Amino acid sequence: MPTISRRGELMPQSPIRKLVPLANEAKAKGIAVYHLNIGQPDLPSPEEGLEALKKIDRKTLEYSPSEGLYSLRKKLEGYYHKFNIDVDVDDIIITTGGSEAVLFAFMACLDPGDEIIVPEPAYANYMAFAISAGAKIVTIPSNIDDGFALPPVEKFEELITPRTKGILICNPNNPTGYLYTRKEMDCIRDIVKKYDLFLFSDEVYREYCYTGSPYISAFHLKGIEEQVVLIDSVSKRYSECGIRIGAIITKHKELKRNVMKFCQARLSPPLLGQIVAEASIDATPEYMLMTYNEYVERRKFLIDGLNKIPGCYSPIPMGAFYTVVSLPVDDADKFCEWCLRDFSYEGATVFMAPASGFYTTPGMGKNEVRMAYVLNKEDLGKALQVLAQALKAYPGRTI
Amino acid sequence: MPTISRRGELMPQSPIRKLVPLANEAKAKGIAVYHLNIGQPDLPSPEEGLEALKKIDRKTLEYSPSEGLYSLRKKLEGYYHKFNIDVDVDDIIITTGGSEAVLFAFMACLDPGDEIIVPEPAYANYMAFAISAGAKIVTIPSNIDDGFALPPVEKFEELITPRTKGILICNPNNPTGYLYTRKEMDCIRDIVKKYDLFLFSDEVYREYCYTGSPYISAFHLKGIEEQVVLIDSVSKRYSECGIRIGAIITKHKELKRNVMKFCQARLSPPLLGQIVAEASIDATPEYMLMTYNEYVERRKFLIDGLNKIPGCYSPIPMGAFYTVVSLPVDDADKFCEWCLRDFSYEGATVFMAPASGFYTTPGMGKNEVRMAYVLNKEDLGKALQVLAQALKAYPGRTI
Repeated sequence: MPTISRRGELMPQSPIRKLVPLANEAKAKGIAVYHLNIGQPDLPSPEEGLEALKKIDRKTLEYSPSEGLYSLRKKLEGYYHKFNIDVDVDDIIITTGGSEAVLFAFMACLDPGDEIIVPEPAYANYMAFAISAGAKIVTIPSNIDDGFALPPVEKFEELITPRTKGILICNPNNPTGYLYTRKEMDCIRDIVKKYDLFLFSDEVYREYCYTGSPYISAFHLKGIEEQVVLIDSVSKRYSECGIRIGAIITKHKELKRNVMKFCQARLSPPLLGQIVAEASIDATPEYMLMTYNEYVERRKFLIDGLNKIPGCYSPIPMGAFYTVVSLPVDDADKFCEWCLRDFSYEGATVFMAPASGFYTTPGMGKNEVRMAYVLNKEDLGKALQVLAQALKAYPGRTI
Repeated sequence: MPTISRRGELMPQSPIRKLVPLANEAKAKGIAVYHLNIGQPDLPSPEEGLEALKKIDRKTLEYSPSEGLYSLRKKLEGYYHKFNIDVDVDDIIITTGGSEAVLFAFMACLDPGDEIIVPEPAYANYMAFAISAGAKIVTIPSNIDDGFALPPVEKFEELITPRTKGILICNPNNPTGYLYTRKEMDCIRDIVKKYDLFLFSDEVYREYCYTGSPYISAFHLKGIEEQVVLIDSVSKRYSECGIRIGAIITKHKELKRNVMKFCQARLSPPLLGQIVAEASIDATPEYMLMTYNEYVERRKFLIDGLNKIPGCYSPIPMGAFYTVVSLPVDDADKFCEWCLRDFSYEGATVFMAPASGFYTTPGMGKNEVRMAYVLNKEDLGKALQVLAQALKAYPGRTI
């Protein structure tokens, strides 16, 4: 039998995936499972998008242009202008979710052996897309005790080699909820400029910044405008993960042409999703405020609750809808597994994402988990109760 | 400024893409352009699919499972059984169009430097996906004078090296319309078995076989069931190119797991497209017969018309909705360009795909074009008239 690719074997297998069968077994036993493990918002998609979907009246569901529908791209241009992101419709290329945006950005910028530097913990699938492109992700650890602030410039400089082609950030951050400050963004700008790098900036959570600190887009940084590769998606901001609409935004002319070759090879992004996304950009301020306020409340509720549980610590996330929490346990992978397989409290248990999946440095995040606050407050409250009880009963507890 | 990837520079740029601006300029001058250049069917999508779209009544457009909706996969299982393709729901993984199916098949089977053998002319984007995976496509020329029959076994064997990992066929074929015979498929089976290769088989045009010759799926071949990687898509059979729903079908357990890692990295295929595709599998026999009969008529009409033009020759395509035609011209790339830039007849011109984009062997297909019969008969008739006049007027004509 022919052998599969080694590339595939290198692909990281998220610890979350390994836990899914255990969660299913728990449910089969009648146990309620609170899903804190994934970034699937439970909030409704905007009416504008759902209505546009109902009104689609085409006889033939044709290919759209490889770069996406002009009307959607034009509307996104206006959307970005509201955030003082000065891009033109021609700088915007529609992709099949933010996922394809990352893949195509890597494919078009990186050759096999090229390196990009990423602060960790980081979204695990960046690694998968880097492996797809044959590129290497070099991580710089950030630390829960510093609230996951950007590591100092020297740490970046130590890692720069002749193969370094870029730096990747996610801001606001998944998994930590960290929001980079002006000073930190200026640091990143200086390194990117000094070493002539690409700055891959995943800003899909920009609508969710909670502390009054400004959201600073990579495109707000002066002097590196052509080096920025912005990754975007409508999935999180309109609770439309399933429509698979994202974008790559770049002002680098050669890069645009290069990205377009990958876009043309896959013919077109999803037509139906584009129609929904375009309409969703008209979501009312009330809708946007409702989702924002909901996350603000959940955030406060969850973080307060977590920090009251003995031995638990979560920094206060400034954006997105995740937090990384340290737990008084020997091994968070084992604890998450134990919660699903061996524990329940009043007929319920919790599904958390072990943070080991977000680090590449061995041993880092060993007692940490990521939680997504995509459940309503009542469920979050129950999940907190279950967690507190689980930490009392877990044989590997450290307090 | 940071440099883009060499990988991107290697990506083939289809000659069709270069002609698009010329076609747009012609239209701007008020010239009607008959599009014979792309496989975008003009026929309506099935009512079942369009109705299902209108009935989507979800509040949150969520991620679907990475392997696709179970209900769609189960229905596809039944669809394949009707073609005596003995696959199980667990063998079917939903992808974002046939495009992603090819990309993931290559990513999961091939490492950089691995080779696959492909008879040419071939669908140009296979090359793009191979480059994405760092793999090498090695072509075996087939010939218009043999009606694009499979090259003899010895030709395949001459090209096999220690890096050969598979053979790729498209059956019925894009761009030639060729349908492999039982004898030819058995030949392919023997090579695949002897050298322990993967057989990548793109069968998206299976509904369109016109000559009474049987459609032989790669899965009908005995003894290589675990080596077959079937590529499929609903785009062509339901005129639903825009919904981006395809599939990889394999019985190779390790490969399935490997493909799933790439699927998980991109989270999920398009939700809305999956709902439409699932409903479309219930398209009535009348719908399927209507589209079939329409293509049968157009095929006869186009091929008869082409072979009446002095110096033109098209074999009779046995399937799909394309044909490769040799023209009495010095250079089909130049001729196609000339038709769009310098020629019109009664206010109209034709857009054809130069066959050079489907060959990698230099000089092959120099006087050939691909035509897609995705226009109605009236338009095909006008396109034929324009072509006949163009061939009389073209300065580089060879008769």
